[in-house]
Amino acid sequence: MKNYKSQKKLLKLFNKTLTNISMKTEGLTPKRIPIRVGSRYIAILNEKAAKQMDLHAADRVILKVGKRDITAILDITEKKDFKDNQIGLYAETWEKLEVKRGDKIKVSIAPKPLVDAFIKDKLEGKTLTEEQINAIIKDVVADDLSDVEMTYFVSGCFANGLNDDETVALTKAIVKYGDKLEFKKKIVMDKHCIGGVPGNRTTMVVVPIITALGYTMPKTSSRAITSPSGTADTMEILANVVNDATKLKKIAKKVGGFITWGGGVDLASADDKLIRVRYPLKLDPQGMLLASIMAKKFSVSANHVIIDIPIGPQAKVKTMAKAKQLQQRFLSIGKKLKMKMKVVITDGAEPIGNGVGPLLECFDVINVLKNAENAPKDLREKSLTLASKLLSLTSKYKSEAAAKKIAREVLDSGKAWTQFEKIIEAQGKKNLPKIGEHTLHFKSTKKGIVKAIDNKLIALIARNAGAPLDSGAGVYIYKHIGDTIEKGENLFTVYAENKDRLKYVQKLPLDTAYKIN
Amino acid sequence: MKNYKSQKKLLKLFNKTLTNISMKTEGLTPKRIPIRVGSRYIAILNEKAAKQMDLHAADRVILKVGKRDITAILDITEKKDFKDNQIGLYAETWEKLEVKRGDKIKVSIAPKPLVDAFIKDKLEGKTLTEEQINAIIKDVVADDLSDVEMTYFVSGCFANGLNDDETVALTKAIVKYGDKLEFKKKIVMDKHCIGGVPGNRTTMVVVPIITALGYTMPKTSSRAITSPSGTADTMEILANVVNDATKLKKIAKKVGGFITWGGGVDLASADDKLIRVRYPLKLDPQGMLLASIMAKKFSVSANHVIIDIPIGPQAKVKTMAKAKQLQQRFLSIGKKLKMKMKVVITDGAEPIGNGVGPLLECFDVINVLKNAENAPKDLREKSLTLASKLLSLTSKYKSEAAAKKIAREVLDSGKAWTQFEKIIEAQGKKNLPKIGEHTLHFKSTKKGIVKAIDNKLIALIARNAGAPLDSGAGVYIYKHIGDTIEKGENLFTVYAENKDRLKYVQKLPLDTAYKIN
Repeated sequence: MKNYKSQKKLLKLFNKTLTNISMKTEGLTPKRIPIRVGSRYIAILNEKAAKQMDLHAADRVILKVGKRDITAILDITEKKDFKDNQIGLYAETWEKLEVKRGDKIKVSIAPKPLVDAFIKDKLEGKTLTEEQINAIIKDVVADDLSDVEMTYFVSGCFANGLNDDETVALTKAIVKYGDKLEFKKKIVMDKHCIGGVPGNRTTMVVVPIITALGYTMPKTSSRAITSPSGTADTMEILANVVNDATKLKKIAKKVGGFITWGGGVDLASADDKLIRVRYPLKLDPQGMLLASIMAKKFSVSANHVIIDIPIGPQAKVKTMAKAKQLQQRFLSIGKKLKMKMKVVITDGAEPIGNGVGPLLECFDVINVLKNAENAPKDLREKSLTLASKLLSLTSKYKSEAAAKKIAREVLDSGKAWTQFEKIIEAQGKKNLPKIGEHTLHFKSTKKGIVKAIDNKLIALIARNAGAPLDSGAGVYIYKHIGDTIEKGENLFTVYAENKDRLKYVQKLPLDTAYKIN
Repeated sequence: MKNYKSQKKLLKLFNKTLTNISMKTEGLTPKRIPIRVGSRYIAILNEKAAKQMDLHAADRVILKVGKRDITAILDITEKKDFKDNQIGLYAETWEKLEVKRGDKIKVSIAPKPLVDAFIKDKLEGKTLTEEQINAIIKDVVADDLSDVEMTYFVSGCFANGLNDDETVALTKAIVKYGDKLEFKKKIVMDKHCIGGVPGNRTTMVVVPIITALGYTMPKTSSRAITSPSGTADTMEILANVVNDATKLKKIAKKVGGFITWGGGVDLASADDKLIRVRYPLKLDPQGMLLASIMAKKFSVSANHVIIDIPIGPQAKVKTMAKAKQLQQRFLSIGKKLKMKMKVVITDGAEPIGNGVGPLLECFDVINVLKNAENAPKDLREKSLTLASKLLSLTSKYKSEAAAKKIAREVLDSGKAWTQFEKIIEAQGKKNLPKIGEHTLHFKSTKKGIVKAIDNKLIALIARNAGAPLDSGAGVYIYKHIGDTIEKGENLFTVYAENKDRLKYVQKLPLDTAYKIN
């Protein structure tokens, strides 16, 4: 603590000096740059002007005109776009300062954010306090940190990890500086799947079962980033998934729950901003991943939560040891956050259901909910298991088995399907698109038993076929692990809306998708 | 190695898929953004257009018009600056593509750089190979990496360190992808000081001594970033320090050496680019620091090198243990690079010489070289020690003491001064500026012995007084550690060119600059 104070003092001293040094400018002539760059304010100086004011690229500067001032991030150009007495202002900056003809802009250096020191601490392997994490996330949400600073924070969390207390603090901070969906219910349910398994659309079966029983389940889901479909993409085939907080509360009040795209509400603004800098290296620092998931549950008021960790050679989690470690962390953090929680480790070795791609996945879900003959058993069973584990968190059921019996009744009786139709209606029903008319049937070249399926390749085939943007594109698999197959029998069919897409599909090593012995 | 290959294969597969997905665009209408952003090509899409093409901010995209194509980094704007069929191109991008009226720009995703995987490896604590480091630095110099990617690389090196082999590889890569100053001499000398000590201008004494003896010493120095003066700033008072490679070779041929600003030649381009992202957090990953120093020596063909590590409570290196660790690393890396090297640990507890600030430091240097009565003894002695240690690396002298005798003779005889005048003449002599006319004399409030001097505060006083931009500004100290002082006697004088500056100086806690008991 002493160290922190002296750090703070020195920083103050330096900041004061720097402010003094650059205050000598008498005002620069603004030049408007007709581009919007998002919420951050950016100003540009030429190299010589910057040097004279002792300013560097990425410095924070205070821009002042009359009584208005804002803090902006400085860019420096080596080229002659600006004169030495000019300052370039992007559209948002220009407008915020209400620049008028003849105005002069006074420039001085802004104090460096104190959180830079905390971020450096994390990179050095130190543990951050709740206050420090709060301060970082506050600055992230306020767009006060540059991409470089946010990247250092992500790096520190990735290289040195976040302990449970830090993760809890990060969760709370993300919730604090984001929107919330409040439900004044004693029981609000939610689920989350760590992902990496194609076709894993259990949410669309679990939510109807749970809400048919009268519970509240406000489910936000993500869209595909590198996969052939996210739950939000698949749900979007049937219903509108872009809904704001007001509308979502109305829907939940009416039908008990929804399945919507998380990006339609600003529940975890900090998380979204950090994900942007995580994207280039696809970094998933565990503490951030946990906080991100927990914050999303927290911000919809969920207090009964089931987490699904699929393991498989190509799932996000590859080994049982890793899954158990993650399970322990979830439980420990859930406890600290006073959430009732179960974490179930599931089989992620092969796709769940038969369809991979938005529309094909929808067919699977509908078939399960309608108890159709060709409903994929694995999707049905996994959904029932997740629903019953979630129900049994309430202590209203004698056992998980008792809860499962109830869940099965809801599904078998058609109540879940009726409830799903109500949810679709409440969100705004859509017309089903057509399935891709161009097909490629891939047959087995030998007789045998399916030993393994290459999930990543199946996903890649569906992507190449056009999913998720072409909603009728994807892969339908006929065989799961353990199934017997005859020589010449269909293994899978690829659907595409655009014929050219099948050419891209054929470039992939299709014969390695199934391992048959 | 197997892992590396499969990683590479998968990446290729993914990249192929992504390329296919985004190739569907039929061409966008370009809109020129009249700003230059440096050497990197940048294009902007609106959010909807980006989503339709499955592109994300910071993605690399190939822009194609006719037969010309370039790789650019993608920005995405949430606002309506562009229509869905438009693409914004910054000035450099527009010009490079030679866009003409009616042209359409085809956009496709570019392969992700393979080095992203290496950078992630480093963040995960793995050791990088020479090839991997080479590939990263090649991309850094070619502006192929975004700031976020470079920041991750710096973070990995900072959080997990670089071992000696990695540091050697980094040194060689920086040299390989930068300019070189080649001297076909058997002995090329150089020195480097780790820094953090105000007034430490030994270079300006050592170079004249060494070159007066007929050796080659091509010294590149840095400017102040947060200190009141760098060697380049101080030398610039007397001579031109912005010289290109051709001119520097000419000067060295004529007078044996120079003292120039490193930024005038592009000797370590990769280093400069990495320093830009290190700046916001002021990160000094040790391996990068070592590689940066060694690369600069290497790129001027130096093979006899002395490194000065000052230690003190406010120097860059604070403890003897840390200094010894750094010393060992320098020696070990020097050996691997086949450089003759000595690393000397010196006293960095107080300023060297009496002046702090460009002109005041010049006075000290000139006084030492001219053997003036008021020449600061510490600057003289330290310079002689460094020069003699450097000379004794050549094995032309029986001992360090013998070398020191020679160095002292060169200095005492005035030969060093004559040589310094020749160097100044060769670089381009300047007229001396005036010393700041506004002064503040700070007197001791008690009698006693100087126990400590606050280096950082002295530096801050000089900065607040206007150094280094106001070259006549700075601090002149009258007392060093161990000196006796009377009550009311002058401790130091602050010089400023601008009267207002003294007000800023007076806001600092001047009474804590000296500790007297």
